[in-house]
Amino acid sequence: MTEIKVTKELKGVNLPKTKLGLTKMNVLVRSAEKLFSKKGFYDTSIADICKRARTAVGTFYIYFENKVALYRYLVEQYRLEIHSVLAAATASCETRIQKEREGIRAFIDYAAKKPNVYDIIWGSLSVDKQIFIDYYVSFAESYRRGLTREGDAIKTNDCLTLAYALMGITNFVGLRAIFEEMTPDQIDTMVDECVMKLLRSGAFVDE
Amino acid sequence: MTEIKVTKELKGVNLPKTKLGLTKMNVLVRSAEKLFSKKGFYDTSIADICKRARTAVGTFYIYFENKVALYRYLVEQYRLEIHSVLAAATASCETRIQKEREGIRAFIDYAAKKPNVYDIIWGSLSVDKQIFIDYYVSFAESYRRGLTREGDAIKTNDCLTLAYALMGITNFVGLRAIFEEMTPDQIDTMVDECVMKLLRSGAFVDE
Repeated sequence: MTEIKVTKELKGVNLPKTKLGLTKMNVLVRSAEKLFSKKGFYDTSIADICKRARTAVGTFYIYFENKVALYRYLVEQYRLEIHSVLAAATASCETRIQKEREGIRAFIDYAAKKPNVYDIIWGSLSVDKQIFIDYYVSFAESYRRGLTREGDAIKTNDCLTLAYALMGITNFVGLRAIFEEMTPDQIDTMVDECVMKLLRSGAFVDE
Repeated sequence: MTEIKVTKELKGVNLPKTKLGLTKMNVLVRSAEKLFSKKGFYDTSIADICKRARTAVGTFYIYFENKVALYRYLVEQYRLEIHSVLAAATASCETRIQKEREGIRAFIDYAAKKPNVYDIIWGSLSVDKQIFIDYYVSFAESYRRGLTREGDAIKTNDCLTLAYALMGITNFVGLRAIFEEMTPDQIDTMVDECVMKLLRSGAFVDE
Protein backbone atom coordinates (compact mmCIF):
# COMPACT_ATOMS: atom_id res chain seq x y z
CA MET A 1 0.00 0.00 0.00
CA THR A 2 3.14 2.18 0.14
CA GLU A 3 2.24 3.88 -3.10
CA ILE A 4 -1.08 5.26 -1.83
CA LYS A 5 -0.44 8.99 -1.55
CA VAL A 6 -2.46 10.99 0.95
CA THR A 7 -2.94 14.64 -0.01
CA LYS A 8 -5.74 15.56 2.42
CA GLU A 9 -4.76 17.65 5.46
CA LEU A 10 -5.13 15.50 8.58
CA LYS A 11 -4.97 16.66 12.20
CA GLY A 12 -1.56 16.00 13.72
CA VAL A 13 -0.05 14.83 10.42
CA ASN A 14 2.70 16.71 8.56
CA LEU A 15 2.72 15.50 4.98
CA PRO A 16 6.27 15.30 3.62
CA LYS A 17 7.31 17.50 0.70
CA THR A 18 9.89 15.16 -0.81
CA LYS A 19 9.72 11.67 -2.22
CA LEU A 20 12.33 10.51 0.28
CA GLY A 21 10.24 11.96 3.10
CA LEU A 22 7.19 10.09 1.83
CA THR A 23 9.14 6.83 1.73
CA LYS A 24 10.40 7.32 5.29
CA MET A 25 6.91 8.15 6.50
CA ASN A 26 5.40 5.09 4.86
CA VAL A 27 8.02 2.78 6.36
CA LEU A 28 6.78 3.96 9.76
CA VAL A 29 3.13 3.49 8.77
CA ARG A 30 3.67 -0.05 7.46
CA SER A 31 5.58 -0.92 10.64
CA ALA A 32 2.73 0.46 12.78
CA GLU A 33 0.10 -1.37 10.71
CA LYS A 34 1.81 -4.73 11.30
CA LEU A 35 2.22 -4.07 15.03
CA PHE A 36 -1.38 -2.86 15.46
CA SER A 37 -2.62 -6.08 13.82
CA LYS A 38 -0.41 -8.23 16.01
CA LYS A 39 -0.47 -6.51 19.39
CA GLY A 40 -3.28 -3.96 19.08
CA PHE A 41 -3.08 -0.17 19.08
CA TYR A 42 -2.72 0.27 22.82
CA ASP A 43 0.03 -2.26 23.34
CA THR A 44 2.13 -0.80 20.52
CA SER A 45 4.37 2.10 21.52
CA ILE A 46 5.96 4.74 19.29
CA ALA A 47 9.29 3.22 20.32
CA ASP A 48 8.09 -0.21 19.05
CA ILE A 49 7.01 1.31 15.74
CA CYS A 50 10.35 3.04 15.24
CA LYS A 51 12.36 0.02 16.29
CA ARG A 52 10.61 -2.22 13.78
CA ALA A 53 11.00 0.46 11.09
CA ARG A 54 14.70 0.95 12.01
CA THR A 55 14.03 4.65 12.32
CA ALA A 56 15.02 7.14 15.01
CA VAL A 57 12.14 8.17 17.28
CA GLY A 58 12.79 11.79 16.32
CA THR A 59 11.86 10.94 12.72
CA PHE A 60 8.42 9.76 13.86
CA TYR A 61 7.68 13.22 15.23
CA ILE A 62 8.62 14.93 11.95
CA TYR A 63 5.50 13.37 10.43
CA PHE A 64 3.15 12.59 13.30
CA GLU A 65 2.25 14.44 16.46
CA ASN A 66 1.36 11.17 18.18
CA LYS A 67 0.18 7.59 17.63
CA VAL A 68 -3.42 8.65 17.00
CA ALA A 69 -2.27 10.93 14.15
CA LEU A 70 -0.51 7.99 12.52
CA TYR A 71 -3.71 5.94 12.89
CA ARG A 72 -5.64 8.75 11.21
CA TYR A 73 -3.19 8.66 8.30
CA LEU A 74 -3.44 4.85 8.08
CA VAL A 75 -7.27 4.92 7.90
CA GLU A 76 -7.07 7.60 5.18
CA GLN A 77 -4.73 5.34 3.19
CA TYR A 78 -7.22 2.48 3.52
CA ARG A 79 -10.02 4.76 2.37
CA LEU A 80 -8.06 5.79 -0.72
CA GLU A 81 -6.99 2.22 -1.44
CA ILE A 82 -10.56 0.87 -1.18
CA HIS A 83 -11.82 3.69 -3.42
CA SER A 84 -9.20 2.85 -6.00
CA VAL A 85 -9.91 -0.90 -5.84
CA LEU A 86 -13.65 -0.25 -6.34
CA ALA A 87 -13.06 2.27 -9.13
CA ALA A 88 -10.83 -0.18 -11.00
CA ALA A 89 -13.31 -3.05 -10.56
CA THR A 90 -16.27 -1.04 -11.84
CA ALA A 91 -14.60 1.04 -14.57
CA SER A 92 -15.91 -1.01 -17.46
CA CYS A 93 -19.42 -1.64 -16.07
CA GLU A 94 -22.24 -0.33 -18.19
CA THR A 95 -25.18 -0.47 -15.80
CA ARG A 96 -25.58 0.50 -12.15
CA ILE A 97 -26.48 -3.03 -11.15
CA GLN A 98 -23.28 -4.33 -12.77
CA LYS A 99 -21.32 -1.66 -10.91
CA GLU A 100 -22.81 -2.79 -7.60
CA ARG A 101 -22.08 -6.43 -8.35
CA GLU A 102 -18.46 -5.83 -9.27
CA GLY A 103 -17.99 -3.36 -6.40
CA ILE A 104 -19.30 -5.81 -3.79
CA ARG A 105 -17.24 -8.62 -5.29
CA ALA A 106 -14.09 -6.50 -5.31
CA PHE A 107 -14.57 -5.36 -1.71
CA ILE A 108 -15.04 -8.95 -0.51
CA ASP A 109 -11.89 -10.04 -2.38
CA TYR A 110 -10.01 -7.14 -0.85
CA ALA A 111 -11.25 -7.95 2.67
CA ALA A 112 -10.50 -11.66 2.22
CA LYS A 113 -6.91 -10.83 1.30
CA LYS A 114 -6.61 -8.17 3.97
CA PRO A 115 -9.02 -9.11 6.77
CA ASN A 116 -7.41 -6.59 9.11
CA VAL A 117 -9.31 -3.91 7.18
CA TYR A 118 -12.13 -4.43 9.71
CA ASP A 119 -9.76 -4.27 12.68
CA ILE A 120 -8.26 -1.02 11.44
CA ILE A 121 -11.45 0.77 10.39
CA TRP A 122 -13.88 -0.48 13.06
CA GLY A 123 -11.08 -0.45 15.60
CA SER A 124 -10.87 3.33 15.09
CA LEU A 125 -14.01 3.48 17.27
CA SER A 126 -11.83 2.76 20.27
CA VAL A 127 -8.88 4.91 19.16
CA ASP A 128 -10.65 8.13 18.20
CA LYS A 129 -14.35 7.97 17.35
CA GLN A 130 -14.03 10.96 15.00
CA ILE A 131 -11.76 8.93 12.69
CA PHE A 132 -14.54 6.34 12.37
CA ILE A 133 -17.23 8.97 11.76
CA ASP A 134 -15.14 10.86 9.17
CA TYR A 135 -14.38 7.62 7.34
CA TYR A 136 -17.99 6.53 6.94
CA VAL A 137 -19.48 9.98 6.40
CA SER A 138 -17.00 10.58 3.60
CA PHE A 139 -17.47 7.12 2.08
CA ALA A 140 -21.28 7.40 2.24
CA GLU A 141 -21.26 10.86 0.67
CA SER A 142 -19.14 9.73 -2.23
CA TYR A 143 -21.35 6.64 -2.70
CA ARG A 144 -24.46 8.87 -2.59
CA ARG A 145 -23.09 11.12 -5.34
CA GLY A 146 -22.55 8.09 -7.58
CA LEU A 147 -26.05 6.75 -6.92
CA THR A 148 -27.71 10.12 -7.48
CA ARG A 149 -26.12 10.41 -10.92
CA GLU A 150 -27.89 7.21 -11.98
CA GLY A 151 -31.31 8.86 -11.90
CA ASP A 152 -34.15 6.49 -12.77
CA ALA A 153 -32.09 3.35 -12.31
CA ILE A 154 -32.48 3.86 -8.52
CA LYS A 155 -35.79 2.98 -6.88
CA THR A 156 -35.55 5.35 -3.91
CA ASN A 157 -35.07 9.11 -3.60
CA ASP A 158 -33.05 8.71 -0.43
CA CYS A 159 -29.70 7.84 -1.98
CA LEU A 160 -27.77 8.61 1.21
CA THR A 161 -29.62 5.97 3.25
CA LEU A 162 -29.27 3.58 0.33
CA ALA A 163 -25.51 4.22 0.39
CA TYR A 164 -25.38 3.27 4.09
CA ALA A 165 -27.52 0.18 3.44
CA LEU A 166 -25.23 -0.94 0.60
CA MET A 167 -22.11 -0.36 2.69
CA GLY A 168 -23.74 -2.45 5.42
CA ILE A 169 -24.60 -5.31 3.07
CA THR A 170 -21.09 -5.36 1.59
CA ASN A 171 -19.31 -5.21 4.95
CA PHE A 172 -21.43 -7.90 6.58
CA VAL A 173 -21.53 -10.30 3.65
CA GLY A 174 -17.76 -9.80 3.57
CA LEU A 175 -17.63 -10.88 7.23
CA ARG A 176 -19.40 -14.12 6.35
CA ALA A 177 -16.90 -14.79 3.56
CA ILE A 178 -14.00 -14.29 5.97
CA PHE A 179 -15.56 -16.26 8.87
CA GLU A 180 -16.16 -19.25 6.60
CA GLU A 181 -12.99 -18.83 4.52
CA MET A 182 -15.06 -19.08 1.35
CA THR A 183 -13.55 -19.90 -2.03
CA PRO A 184 -13.97 -17.41 -4.92
CA ASP A 185 -16.68 -19.67 -6.39
CA GLN A 186 -18.59 -19.74 -3.11
CA ILE A 187 -18.36 -15.96 -2.92
CA ASP A 188 -19.70 -15.65 -6.48
CA THR A 189 -22.66 -17.87 -5.65
CA MET A 190 -23.43 -15.97 -2.45
CA VAL A 191 -23.29 -12.62 -4.24
CA ASP A 192 -25.37 -13.71 -7.24
CA GLU A 193 -27.92 -15.96 -5.55
CA CYS A 194 -28.63 -13.76 -2.57
CA VAL A 195 -27.18 -10.25 -2.61
CA MET A 196 -27.95 -9.39 -6.23
CA LYS A 197 -31.46 -10.83 -5.93
CA LEU A 198 -32.00 -8.57 -2.92
CA LEU A 199 -30.75 -5.54 -4.84
CA ARG A 200 -32.80 -6.37 -7.94
CA SER A 201 -36.11 -7.40 -6.44
CA GLY A 202 -36.03 -7.30 -2.65
CA ALA A 203 -35.96 -10.01 -0.03
CA PHE A 204 -39.53 -10.43 1.13
CA VAL A 205 -42.86 -11.07 -0.48
CA ASP A 206 -45.07 -8.16 0.47
CA GLU A 207 -48.14 -9.67 2.06
CA MET B 1 -29.04 -3.96 31.95
CA THR B 2 -28.31 -5.48 35.38
CA GLU B 3 -31.25 -7.85 35.10
CA ILE B 4 -29.94 -9.58 31.94
CA LYS B 5 -28.94 -13.02 33.20
CA VAL B 6 -26.23 -14.91 31.34
CA THR B 7 -26.54 -18.69 31.57
CA LYS B 8 -24.13 -19.68 28.76
CA GLU B 9 -20.72 -21.01 29.83
CA LEU B 10 -18.06 -18.47 28.81
CA LYS B 11 -14.29 -18.95 28.85
CA GLY B 12 -12.73 -17.43 31.97
CA VAL B 13 -16.10 -16.58 33.54
CA ASN B 14 -17.44 -18.21 36.72
CA LEU B 15 -21.17 -17.65 36.83
CA PRO B 16 -22.34 -17.04 40.40
CA LYS B 17 -24.75 -19.46 42.05
CA THR B 18 -26.52 -16.98 44.31
CA LYS B 19 -28.57 -13.87 43.69
CA LEU B 20 -26.18 -11.83 45.83
CA GLY B 21 -23.25 -13.13 43.78
CA LEU B 22 -25.01 -12.11 40.58
CA THR B 23 -25.59 -8.61 41.95
CA LYS B 24 -21.94 -8.24 42.95
CA MET B 25 -20.79 -9.49 39.57
CA ASN B 26 -23.04 -7.10 37.70
CA VAL B 27 -21.85 -4.11 39.75
CA LEU B 28 -18.37 -4.90 38.43
CA VAL B 29 -19.62 -5.30 34.87
CA ARG B 30 -21.52 -1.99 34.92
CA SER B 31 -18.46 -0.27 36.34
CA ALA B 32 -16.26 -1.75 33.60
CA GLU B 33 -18.78 -0.83 30.91
CA LYS B 34 -18.69 2.85 31.96
CA LEU B 35 -14.91 2.92 32.14
CA PHE B 36 -14.46 1.16 28.76
CA SER B 37 -16.74 3.78 27.16
CA LYS B 38 -14.84 6.63 28.77
CA LYS B 39 -11.23 5.53 28.69
CA GLY B 40 -11.23 2.50 26.41
CA PHE B 41 -10.52 -1.14 27.24
CA TYR B 42 -6.73 -0.85 27.35
CA ASP B 43 -6.54 2.20 29.58
CA THR B 44 -8.93 0.68 32.13
CA SER B 45 -7.30 -1.54 34.75
CA ILE B 46 -8.92 -4.17 36.94
CA ALA B 47 -8.02 -1.91 39.88
CA ASP B 48 -9.96 0.97 38.22
CA ILE B 49 -12.99 -1.26 37.70
CA CYS B 50 -12.97 -2.43 41.33
CA LYS B 51 -12.40 1.07 42.69
CA ARG B 52 -15.37 2.47 40.79
CA ALA B 53 -17.49 -0.52 41.87
CA ARG B 54 -16.29 -0.14 45.50
CA THR B 55 -15.35 -3.79 45.45
CA ALA B 56 -12.19 -5.55 46.62
CA VAL B 57 -9.92 -6.69 43.79
CA GLY B 58 -10.18 -10.26 45.12
CA THR B 59 -13.91 -10.21 44.38
CA PHE B 60 -13.19 -9.52 40.71
CA TYR B 61 -11.25 -12.77 40.45
CA ILE B 62 -14.11 -14.80 41.93
CA TYR B 63 -16.06 -14.13 38.72
CA PHE B 64 -13.50 -13.33 36.05
CA GLU B 65 -10.11 -14.74 35.20
CA ASN B 66 -9.08 -11.44 33.63
CA LYS B 67 -10.34 -8.30 31.90
CA VAL B 68 -10.96 -10.10 28.59
CA ALA B 69 -13.28 -12.57 30.36
CA LEU B 70 -15.31 -9.68 31.74
CA TYR B 71 -15.49 -8.23 28.21
CA ARG B 72 -16.74 -11.59 26.92
CA TYR B 73 -19.48 -11.54 29.56
CA LEU B 74 -20.39 -7.94 28.69
CA VAL B 75 -20.77 -8.74 24.96
CA GLU B 76 -22.94 -11.75 25.85
CA GLN B 77 -25.18 -9.47 27.93
CA TYR B 78 -25.51 -7.11 24.96
CA ARG B 79 -26.39 -10.03 22.71
CA LEU B 80 -29.12 -11.18 25.07
CA GLU B 81 -30.41 -7.65 25.57
CA ILE B 82 -30.60 -6.97 21.82
CA HIS B 83 -32.37 -10.29 21.25
CA SER B 84 -34.90 -9.45 23.91
CA VAL B 85 -35.46 -5.92 22.56
CA LEU B 86 -36.04 -7.32 19.05
CA ALA B 87 -38.30 -10.12 20.30
CA ALA B 88 -40.46 -7.66 22.23
CA ALA B 89 -40.69 -5.27 19.27
CA THR B 90 -41.73 -7.97 16.82
CA ALA B 91 -43.94 -10.15 19.04
CA SER B 92 -47.23 -8.90 17.65
CA CYS B 93 -46.16 -8.70 13.98
CA GLU B 94 -48.16 -10.86 11.62
CA THR B 95 -45.99 -10.87 8.51
CA ARG B 96 -42.25 -11.26 7.97
CA ILE B 97 -41.96 -7.83 6.39
CA GLN B 98 -43.62 -6.26 9.45
CA LYS B 99 -41.21 -8.17 11.66
CA GLU B 100 -38.24 -6.79 9.74
CA ARG B 101 -39.60 -3.24 9.89
CA GLU B 102 -40.20 -3.32 13.63
CA GLY B 103 -36.92 -5.14 14.27
CA ILE B 104 -34.87 -2.57 12.34
CA ARG B 105 -36.75 0.29 13.99
CA ALA B 106 -36.20 -1.20 17.47
CA PHE B 107 -32.49 -1.76 16.88
CA ILE B 108 -31.99 1.83 15.70
CA ASP B 109 -33.86 3.15 18.77
CA TYR B 110 -31.72 0.95 20.97
CA ALA B 111 -28.49 2.10 19.31
CA ALA B 112 -29.56 5.76 19.45
CA LYS B 113 -30.12 5.46 23.21
CA LYS B 114 -27.00 3.40 23.70
CA PRO B 115 -24.55 4.37 20.94
CA ASN B 116 -21.70 2.61 22.75
CA VAL B 117 -23.22 -0.67 21.52
CA TYR B 118 -20.98 -0.26 18.44
CA ASP B 119 -17.91 0.51 20.55
CA ILE B 120 -18.44 -2.57 22.67
CA ILE B 121 -19.31 -5.06 19.95
CA TRP B 122 -17.06 -3.86 17.11
CA GLY B 123 -14.42 -2.92 19.67
CA SER B 124 -14.21 -6.64 20.54
CA LEU B 125 -12.21 -6.98 17.30
CA SER B 126 -9.27 -5.38 19.05
CA VAL B 127 -9.81 -7.10 22.42
CA ASP B 128 -10.26 -10.71 21.29
CA LYS B 129 -11.34 -11.39 17.72
CA GLN B 130 -13.08 -14.61 18.75
CA ILE B 131 -15.59 -12.63 20.82
CA PHE B 132 -16.52 -10.67 17.68
CA ILE B 133 -16.80 -13.83 15.54
CA ASP B 134 -18.88 -15.71 18.14
CA TYR B 135 -21.22 -12.75 18.50
CA TYR B 136 -22.00 -12.43 14.78
CA VAL B 137 -21.99 -16.14 13.97
CA SER B 138 -24.50 -16.73 16.76
CA PHE B 139 -26.64 -13.73 15.82
CA ALA B 140 -26.65 -14.68 12.12
CA GLU B 141 -27.55 -18.29 12.88
CA SER B 142 -30.50 -17.31 15.02
CA TYR B 143 -31.62 -14.80 12.35
CA ARG B 144 -31.30 -17.51 9.67
CA ARG B 145 -33.51 -19.90 11.64
CA GLY B 146 -36.22 -17.25 11.85
CA LEU B 147 -36.01 -16.49 8.13
CA THR B 148 -36.04 -20.16 7.11
CA ARG B 149 -39.27 -20.71 9.03
CA GLU B 150 -41.00 -18.14 6.83
CA GLY B 151 -40.81 -20.35 3.75
CA ASP B 152 -42.25 -18.73 0.63
CA ALA B 153 -42.24 -15.24 2.09
CA ILE B 154 -38.46 -15.16 1.45
CA LYS B 155 -37.20 -14.63 -2.10
CA THR B 156 -33.84 -16.37 -1.71
CA ASN B 157 -32.81 -19.86 -0.62
CA ASP B 158 -29.66 -18.55 1.02
CA CYS B 159 -31.15 -17.38 4.30
CA LEU B 160 -27.78 -17.20 6.05
CA THR B 161 -26.36 -14.66 3.61
CA LEU B 162 -29.64 -12.77 3.79
CA ALA B 163 -29.27 -12.69 7.59
CA TYR B 164 -25.80 -11.10 7.22
CA ALA B 165 -27.12 -8.62 4.65
CA LEU B 166 -30.00 -7.62 6.95
CA MET B 167 -27.68 -7.24 9.95
CA GLY B 168 -25.46 -5.05 7.76
CA ILE B 169 -28.34 -2.84 6.63
CA THR B 170 -29.59 -2.41 10.19
CA ASN B 171 -26.20 -1.64 11.67
CA PHE B 172 -25.20 0.84 8.98
CA VAL B 173 -28.52 2.64 8.73
CA GLY B 174 -28.30 2.85 12.53
CA LEU B 175 -24.90 4.53 12.17
CA ARG B 176 -26.45 7.19 9.94
CA ALA B 177 -29.19 7.83 12.53
CA ILE B 178 -26.55 8.30 15.24
CA PHE B 179 -24.16 10.39 13.14
CA GLU B 180 -26.97 12.80 12.22
CA GLU B 181 -28.75 12.62 15.59
CA MET B 182 -32.02 11.94 13.78
CA THR B 183 -35.42 12.46 15.42
CA PRO B 184 -37.81 9.47 15.67
CA ASP B 185 -39.82 10.92 12.76
CA GLN B 186 -36.73 11.17 10.59
CA ILE B 187 -35.82 7.59 11.45
CA ASP B 188 -39.33 6.44 10.49
CA THR B 189 -39.08 8.19 7.13
CA MET B 190 -35.64 6.75 6.45
CA VAL B 191 -36.78 3.22 7.29
CA ASP B 192 -40.03 3.40 5.33
CA GLU B 193 -38.92 5.39 2.29
CA CYS B 194 -35.65 3.64 1.71
CA VAL B 195 -34.95 0.50 3.74
CA MET B 196 -38.38 -1.09 3.44
CA LYS B 197 -38.55 -0.29 -0.28
CA LEU B 198 -35.22 -2.06 -0.69
CA LEU B 199 -36.47 -5.11 1.24
CA ARG B 200 -39.77 -5.19 -0.66
CA SER B 201 -38.66 -4.57 -4.20
CA GLY B 202 -34.95 -4.00 -4.43
CA ALA B 203 -32.86 -0.91 -5.07
CA PHE B 204 -31.99 -0.97 -8.74
CA VAL B 205 -33.87 -1.24 -11.97
CA ASP B 206 -32.53 -4.30 -13.72
CA GLU B 207 -31.41 -3.13 -17.12
